[in-house]
Order: sequence, then C-alpha cells, then structure tokens
Amino acid sequence: MILSVTLNAALDITYWVDRLDHDRSHRVTAVRERAGGKGLNVGRVLASLGHEVVTTGLVGGNTGDMILMDLEASSIETAFERIDGESRRTITVVATSDGKTMSFNEPGPHVNLEEWQGFKKRFERLLDEVQIVICSGSVPPGLPTDAYATLVAAARSREATTIVDAEGSSLRAAAIAGADIIKPNGFELQDATGQSDPIVGAVALQRAGASAVVVSLGADGLVAVMPAGTWRAVPPTQGGNPTGAGDACVASLAAGIELGRSWPEILRNATALSAASVRCPIAGGYDQSAYLALKSEIRLEELDATDIDA
Amino acid sequence: MILSVTLNAALDITYWVDRLDHDRSHRVTAVRERAGGKGLNVGRVLASLGHEVVTTGLVGGNTGDMILMDLEASSIETAFERIDGESRRTITVVATSDGKTMSFNEPGPHVNLEEWQGFKKRFERLLDEVQIVICSGSVPPGLPTDAYATLVAAARSREATTIVDAEGSSLRAAAIAGADIIKPNGFELQDATGQSDPIVGAVALQRAGASAVVVSLGADGLVAVMPAGTWRAVPPTQGGNPTGAGDACVASLAAGIELGRSWPEILRNATALSAASVRCPIAGGYDQSAYLALKSEIRLEELDATDIDA
Repeated sequence: MILSVTLNAALDITYWVDRLDHDRSHRVTAVRERAGGKGLNVGRVLASLGHEVVTTGLVGGNTGDMILMDLEASSIETAFERIDGESRRTITVVATSDGKTMSFNEPGPHVNLEEWQGFKKRFERLLDEVQIVICSGSVPPGLPTDAYATLVAAARSREATTIVDAEGSSLRAAAIAGADIIKPNGFELQDATGQSDPIVGAVALQRAGASAVVVSLGADGLVAVMPAGTWRAVPPTQGGNPTGAGDACVASLAAGIELGRSWPEILRNATALSAASVRCPIAGGYDQSAYLALKSEIRLEELDATDIDA
Repeated sequence: MILSVTLNAALDITYWVDRLDHDRSHRVTAVRERAGGKGLNVGRVLASLGHEVVTTGLVGGNTGDMILMDLEASSIETAFERIDGESRRTITVVATSDGKTMSFNEPGPHVNLEEWQGFKKRFERLLDEVQIVICSGSVPPGLPTDAYATLVAAARSREATTIVDAEGSSLRAAAIAGADIIKPNGFELQDATGQSDPIVGAVALQRAGASAVVVSLGADGLVAVMPAGTWRAVPPTQGGNPTGAGDACVASLAAGIELGRSWPEILRNATALSAASVRCPIAGGYDQSAYLALKSEIRLEELDATDIDA
C-alpha cells in the first residue's frame, strides 16, 4: 500500500466566467470544487491506476470538511489529522471566451507543534501498513522546514521507500535525510542547488544523500539520476494544461516501484503519464487512451554521468 | 422589532493581493470572510444603530454554516431556513498596490418549492414578533419572481410595515402587492419602469401600488415620492466605496419608521447614513463620526410632483 502525504491540503475552486476584465464584477457561470494539494492529486492518480493508496496530512475548519467530503466522494481513503486552523483554498478563474486564467492562492493555516506531534504519531501508525511513502507540496506555516526530512527518516527506519516532491530547504533536507527519490522540477532544482544544468543539479542532490533524483522538465520530459544509471526520457511534442503533470509523474514512479518494474520502464511510464495528464484539464486526472498511446512514443536515452563535477 | 429577509445570502470573501495581473497566479496576502447579501448588511447596520433585528432567509451547505457562524460571532439574531443547495460565495480581490478590484459572484443555489413552503411558514411565525419587514437583494433560482410580493402580502395582512429593495420583475411585483416603501437605485428604477427621470419612474411605481418609493442615486443622494410629499436629499460631495450604501439607506429608513420620526428627518438621516457608509470599506459598516457630521450637511428640498405624467 502507498501513503501520500499532503501537509498543506487545499480546496481547489474553479470559476468559469465569460471573460476576464480588470475592475469589473463577474458573474460566475459555473463552479467546480475539489480537494487539492499535490499529494491529493498524486493519490487520485494512484487510485485511478488501481493502486491501494491512503492519503494523509493536515486539514482544519469548514474548508477541511469540504476537502474530506470530496475525497470520500471519490472513494479515496483518508487518514488526516485535524488542526485548529482553516485549510486553505485556491481559486482559479477561467474565461470561456479566450481561455485566459487567473488564480488566487490563500496562505496555508498556521500549524502548532502539538498538532505536528499528533500528525507524526498518526504517521508512525500508518507506517505499519504501507511500503511506499510520498511527500508532496508545500509545508504550511508553523512547521519546521525539515518536516519532510523527519518523515523520511521515520519511514526509512521502517524500510519504506520514500519519494519527495518539494522545493527549497524542504527539498534539500529531504535529500540529506536519504530519501529514495527526490522529484523537483527544473526551476526547483536550480533554486535548491544553484545549478542550471539539470543533470549537474541532480547529481549534487544525490551526493547530498538522495538515492535517486528525477527532474521533471515539462515538455522536455524527465532526467533521472539513479544508482543504476542516468536517463533522459522525452515525450512527443504537445500542448495542454501542465498543472498536475509533476504529480502524475510522482504517482507513476510510486506505481512502478510497487509493481517491481525496471527503471527504464518506470521512467518511460512516468514520462507518458505526465504527458497524458497535460491533455487533461484537471490536476489529478489524465487522458487514459493518450497514456497508452504515449507509452510507445517516449524516447529513452541512457546518459553517462560518471564524470559530473557537481 | 425588525425582520430583515435575505433569500440569497452569501459568504463574502475578500482577498488582498499585491497587484492584479491577467494570466498569473496570485499569492493572497490576507483573507477576510463575512456573511453577506443585502439583507444581512441591512441587519448589521440596524444592529449597529441599536435596533432589535432578526435576520432570516435561506442558507445551505458548508457555506451556509459559515454564514451563520459569522452572524452569531457578530451577535446578530438569526432565524434561517436550511436548504439542500449550497449557499453562494462572492470573491472580491483587492490589489494593495493601486486599489484595483475584481469580483466574482457565484450563482445562488437552486431552491425547491418545498423549501420555499418551509420558509413561508417560518416567516409567518416570525411575523408574530415584528412590526417592520425588509426584503433585500436577489431571489435565488427556483423561487417564483413574485416571492417578495408574497411576503409583502403576508406582512400587510398582519399590519407590518414592508420595505423592499429589489430589481426587475421582483421589484414591480412587490410594488403591485402594496409594499410600504420600494427602494430601487436609479438603474434598477429605470430598468423596472423604462423611465430615465427618477421622479417620473418613482411616481409610476407608486401608481402601480407602492405607498412610497425612495430612489437611491449614489453621490446625488435620494429622491423620495411619499404620500406626504416628494423630496430630494443631497449629501456633500465625497468619494469612497459605494457597496452597501443602498443597504445603509434601507436600514436607516426602517430605523426612522420604528422610532416614529417625520419623513423629512427620516430622509435626511438615510442620506447621511448612506454617505457615511461610503466612507467605510466594508458593506454593512459606516463611519460613525462621519454620520453625525453629515446629518447637518444634507440639503433637503421639497418638490412638486403632483402634475407628473407617469
């Protein structure tokens, strides 16, 4: 079983309006709400792929209730810790006339250390049942920046495989704590390592302590620096909605590990699923037939990274 | 006691962002939520003026819970009917750099006729305790457009004074049902009567059945066509946030009626309170010292409307 952690879960609200103008009142023609946050997108993709997944993290207030209700409606198993603060919302406004969007992201709730202790105890109990742990997204205010590193260390001591998709100091701390896979995107990698070349940056994070580093590069696919070798995987050219592509990638990596696939196969599938998620307008979704078609169209190339000076 | 009806209550959410740009993700730096909808703004102003007021209407879902929680936190008495649909939200985004705003208004929930019957029974019971009934704002989908007219007829049969602030067919039906005061703004009056001159339009609504028509004209103040005469009340020039100025006007009219004031005094106070609410950034609030100062600065003029051909 796979555990997907979302410390800063959100209610993602989408509004459709005819067109977007400054300084104007807009009549919303349609509203959609769903539970969001990167770890919940990951959980949704894993559930769609047929894997058993439990989602955990922190939720609070009425918005927290709405997040849990939506996950239950999607038959996604939940084991969240309640907090006093109110879970955050994100609002995305889409203009139907020209497809323009604007988004507004609330800050996360403040989490106190007692709540964090409560979550860690719950996490320890959940480790009894799972073999793979995924930590994704931002860490809410009040928590230590090495929160994911703490979870990685706890999971490692129980021999669970860990995958971390985070940024900044949170990402670096998780690498140092020895996460099995670190999955930044190109910008996050450059921000965390100061390296503009993704392979050089990935090797630097690997030397810091991560077993493997998979860098998602949008339309350019993936670069993976693994103990077994270094690969680049490139999908065919396409356009679409990139939101959630990184989450689909993470879900696919976890699914491949659970199924015991080889690394080249895991990377090919992860690249195809990311690309298929770009064809789906909703984060946490993917175009199933595109996924199957794309699998055979991924160009996988093994690289020599033995002499990288990171 | 005064009853303020809000059939389409809302949760008004305000986001502050640094600046507003198209096609961009915005970090929200501050969030404020409060119960909204015109009748709730009216209730808030009346409570601030020291009047006993009960708010009623329809609320549903988690958003409905949040509306009721906010009213309770403000010590405003509530007697709402629950519906299955989810109460609407409004989002206003304010850019702190230049004060620009954008707003997004969700459609109201669909109300079924059983829920409407339930509300009408509750309304009948509430009429035992109140002498003045105010109906404000839009009517949610599913209700008959003459919903306010039905409430006005029920209130009249119990000798309660009725004030209606609505638009379109809802406004016309309330006038025909014999509401004591109809309070459209200039645009709503023109839309409902086809008359561009506010006095001519007001006389037309009075001839349709309303006892009195008070037209709010923004910075130009009020025009009031009453059985006792016709007046124009003009405040000194000022700028500010006009949202909620009409609600402050309605609250002040109700307060003046409850206190048995003369019409000239009622109109002077309503004009001053509207103007004082423009100086307050929040609908349902007003600048108390500005109110007191403005009272003596309102220019009240009696007009001759006996030969109006409406």
